[in-house]
Amino acid sequence: MTDDVIEPATADFQLTRILAALADPQRLATVRYVAANGESWCTQVMQEAGLAMSKSTFSHHLRILREAGILTKRIAGAKGYTRLRRDDLDRRFPGLMGAILDAGPAGATPRADAPAGQGRA
Amino acid sequence: MTDDVIEPATADFQLTRILAALADPQRLATVRYVAANGESWCTQVMQEAGLAMSKSTFSHHLRILREAGILTKRIAGAKGYTRLRRDDLDRRFPGLMGAILDAGPAGATPRADAPAGQGRA
Repeated sequence: MTDDVIEPATADFQLTRILAALADPQRLATVRYVAANGESWCTQVMQEAGLAMSKSTFSHHLRILREAGILTKRIAGAKGYTRLRRDDLDRRFPGLMGAILDAGPAGATPRADAPAGQGRA
Repeated sequence: MTDDVIEPATADFQLTRILAALADPQRLATVRYVAANGESWCTQVMQEAGLAMSKSTFSHHLRILREAGILTKRIAGAKGYTRLRRDDLDRRFPGLMGAILDAGPAGATPRADAPAGQGRA
């Protein structure tokens, strides 16, 4: 399994790159799923986050999220697992991920009866 | 002066659209300038925010920011003025603009001696 994605160090995070990575409904759904479920098998994320796309398209989205510094990937055996770099993000851009995760589904107006957001902030 | 830009109502704000609008260093600099200086003459924003671009390119960026709901524009006489829709943004996505405005210059690591951010959050 080749993996040439370079995940940046926290000090190298770029705000505009992080915003661009999150500015896509399917990438945002990926991040929300991983934020809510912790480290997850990549194939499971694609299936359970309701992402109707090919594996290669999902890989492309995952690459953008990893290159921005939002997600990290760990390979164990033949499986890839991904998790949110929440501590790194919170240290570098305090409050940003919390505000985004708490913002409700992308594009939707929050419902009055919606549960509280899943962010830790 | 024609102006066919549609500025969305707060309930119609879309998170991914807002993130995409802010995911550009020059648009982010525009928003930071207006956040720090209040309602500003558009030509002045372009000059003082250090945006080396044509008027038409700046207009294009302004349109993206207005269509996302981040900035609003008021025309008085022959001049256009723009300001941040901070209250609308804070109501719809609590903490988001504060985190972004406090995040330091786009792409740069915050300096230890930097003054506190200009956000109100």
